Amino acid sequence: MTIMSIEGFLREIGEFLREDQIVTDREYLSHFAYDATERQYMPQTALLPENAEEVSRIMRCSNDHDVPVTPQGGRTGLSGGALPVEGGAVMSFTRLNRIIEIDEENMFATVEPGVISNDLQIELARKGLFFPPDPSSTVDSTLGGNVAENAGYTRAVKYGVTRDYVRGLEAVLPGGEAITLGGKTVKNVAGYDLISLLVGSEGTLAVITKMIFRLLPRPRVRRTIIAYLDDLVSAADLIVAVFRSGIIPCAMELMDNIAINTVADHLGAPLARDAAALVLIEIDGQSEGETHREALEIAALCRGSGGVTYTALATDDAEAERFWMFRREVLPSLKALKKDHIEADVVVPRYSLPFLVKFIRGLEHSDAIKIATYGHAGDGNLHVTILHRRRNFAELDEAYRLLEVIYRETVNMGGSLTGEHGVGLTVMDYLPLQMRGETIPLMKRVKAAFDPKGLLNPGKIFR
Amino acid sequence: MTIMSIEGFLREIGEFLREDQIVTDREYLSHFAYDATERQYMPQTALLPENAEEVSRIMRCSNDHDVPVTPQGGRTGLSGGALPVEGGAVMSFTRLNRIIEIDEENMFATVEPGVISNDLQIELARKGLFFPPDPSSTVDSTLGGNVAENAGYTRAVKYGVTRDYVRGLEAVLPGGEAITLGGKTVKNVAGYDLISLLVGSEGTLAVITKMIFRLLPRPRVRRTIIAYLDDLVSAADLIVAVFRSGIIPCAMELMDNIAINTVADHLGAPLARDAAALVLIEIDGQSEGETHREALEIAALCRGSGGVTYTALATDDAEAERFWMFRREVLPSLKALKKDHIEADVVVPRYSLPFLVKFIRGLEHSDAIKIATYGHAGDGNLHVTILHRRRNFAELDEAYRLLEVIYRETVNMGGSLTGEHGVGLTVMDYLPLQMRGETIPLMKRVKAAFDPKGLLNPGKIFR
Repeated sequence: MTIMSIEGFLREIGEFLREDQIVTDREYLSHFAYDATERQYMPQTALLPENAEEVSRIMRCSNDHDVPVTPQGGRTGLSGGALPVEGGAVMSFTRLNRIIEIDEENMFATVEPGVISNDLQIELARKGLFFPPDPSSTVDSTLGGNVAENAGYTRAVKYGVTRDYVRGLEAVLPGGEAITLGGKTVKNVAGYDLISLLVGSEGTLAVITKMIFRLLPRPRVRRTIIAYLDDLVSAADLIVAVFRSGIIPCAMELMDNIAINTVADHLGAPLARDAAALVLIEIDGQSEGETHREALEIAALCRGSGGVTYTALATDDAEAERFWMFRREVLPSLKALKKDHIEADVVVPRYSLPFLVKFIRGLEHSDAIKIATYGHAGDGNLHVTILHRRRNFAELDEAYRLLEVIYRETVNMGGSLTGEHGVGLTVMDYLPLQMRGETIPLMKRVKAAFDPKGLLNPGKIFR
Repeated sequence: MTIMSIEGFLREIGEFLREDQIVTDREYLSHFAYDATERQYMPQTALLPENAEEVSRIMRCSNDHDVPVTPQGGRTGLSGGALPVEGGAVMSFTRLNRIIEIDEENMFATVEPGVISNDLQIELARKGLFFPPDPSSTVDSTLGGNVAENAGYTRAVKYGVTRDYVRGLEAVLPGGEAITLGGKTVKNVAGYDLISLLVGSEGTLAVITKMIFRLLPRPRVRRTIIAYLDDLVSAADLIVAVFRSGIIPCAMELMDNIAINTVADHLGAPLARDAAALVLIEIDGQSEGETHREALEIAALCRGSGGVTYTALATDDAEAERFWMFRREVLPSLKALKKDHIEADVVVPRYSLPFLVKFIRGLEHSDAIKIATYGHAGDGNLHVTILHRRRNFAELDEAYRLLEVIYRETVNMGGSLTGEHGVGLTVMDYLPLQMRGETIPLMKRVKAAFDPKGLLNPGKIFR
């Protein structure tokens, strides 16, 4: 490793950034040291560029002085992708946050990476347009972060992930060169698909400075169905039956018995505490009559499905909102237990998901440990939260042992260790369980093709 | 460039391939020398591997003896991607052609690259499943070729391109190492998205040996609408109006006046010869009533739209088939003119497409030259056929001059030089018009990360 020269770096940066764009005060700096993983790494400086030219000059300085740069959005990441693990500079997108254009004729939005996800949603709603990716962190997360992590969200089951909506990018390579990829075209096969490669690359290949998103017409109607099941295998069958009906739900969520009970305790709400699983299904569409008809068909399918003990179709938006609250309150309810936790974000073939939940339910562990599972059943994407008592290192060890067992079973089922949170720091050491042979060395060669000196967001994805 | 040793290569290949898997007879070999571009390049040998292990050993021999290898599917490509321009060996997938599994529970198909596209469609139709990518070459093209070129098709406007359905790949790197990427999961963010990178890489990065496709439930109902317009700007407005209605058509095709008249002449069919454009719109869905209601809404929208002179909703499948025949017969009708032609496959923002057609209609050229345009209006993807007399080199020069003018205007409109046919040989020399600065050098570094010796499908995409 070459020796970084932070003083020379800052001196040169000071030639084109104003004082208020360069953070060196330690208290202010600590603000850039953490994300939603609760891990902390202090950078030596944080830089707040206001345009692509400044980003480019920062990257040239990074290259000249061997100072690592870690791009950072809303710090809502769950895998540590925006943490400056090797120090150096954080590049924050707080001030690169304009919605540049909403092109209603072509149905495209052009935005800078620092735009808060929900701000775009609000703008688009006014125009009857729809950008499906809407992660649960939408009020705090930035669109740049969503693109860097290829964020998922509850409606991905029908609408696909963030990558499916990115059609153009402007980015700065680690050497400082600006590149322009794609544009406002829905199709494009000129050369390698570097756009798809940059999406989900967790800020390790290039710094994105502008994004062009494909938009859809906004669905006008939604219907929500809740179902309780008394065993998990029946949940697998229900999921398959829904998809085979020909109606693709826009969301299909699952909560296991532990998640149900944690939410029931937290909210004091009347959930079915004995159920093995709660399944939440949402149907959307343009036509009131047709969407309602489809929702009735899915509700009937639930009622007739083995193991289903209760089904309800929300009668109005307020009731739908109550159903969704059960799902949204899972993480807050788990956090309210005041325990420490480690989290997994595994994904398996859709039909296998309830079997993975069953496997996890069958794991032996000490009484103080609690494992809750919930997630995007329509995508086979399961969030696993392993809770243990604070400052209890024996339990922490046990939690990590359980995590590895769950990861191994996920791989056995043909799954992947992360469905939407990214590898970042948290999954890095487990990636070889899933990727054998030349795959990781090949990814490292791709990284080197973009970043030969390894200065952009170092210490992520693979060692 | 290193010197290839074809004799040593063939000697080593003979140790693990049978005689009937190694073609050296010149007459039989000429079969592997051409594709749908009508260009020809003779290979020194063609190899017919039957499993991934043989592919891997062939690539090791290529690496040891510096013999280029060019993967080849159904040779229906329109950009020359499967032509062995630097000689060496063609690797044909004729015998790597099994449908390995159709997993109805998870809705995934696992296939080898040599499967004919239409054969999978037939298998899936029997099970009520749907693999949307269905290029017009479906009866002859292979699924491996469709993936390598990221093939488009008429219904891409609603269902997206081939890339959107590839969730797992097995491939062999140019050095002979086998890699496995993704699987039967709809989401996956573990490491870089090498799957999306391989899709559309035109066989230049790795040899794909197995593909896992996500499937959808099969739409049960289709409705087709035809509309004629008396000017092209009105066509732009109509396209936008349809998308803003909230109903996403599964296909939306456009033919210009020259294409209309060529088909009318060829079929002797009663098309509206004076129209500036013919627009074909297809709506699909699961429910008879709803799909019909949507089709009526779109037909009414057409009738009320400026510049529309005639609208018809097909009353039955036979009439819909007649409407589609007009579109399908464009290329055969142009070929029946017995002229030579060069083709472009440009893509622009959707709203700009009719303006590009108008620009092309306004180009001055000699009388013997004829330019027909038609294509996927919903995607902004336009096929341009420039016809000139055979063996007339002045006209050929003029055709290439017109091609470059059209390419420059496409780039000015924010478009791309190829929407679905690929760069291959035919667009290679024009790519710098669209990609400036570091983009092509970066793509070359990505190529080198996969293929340091440049032996896999050399002479394609960029010089």
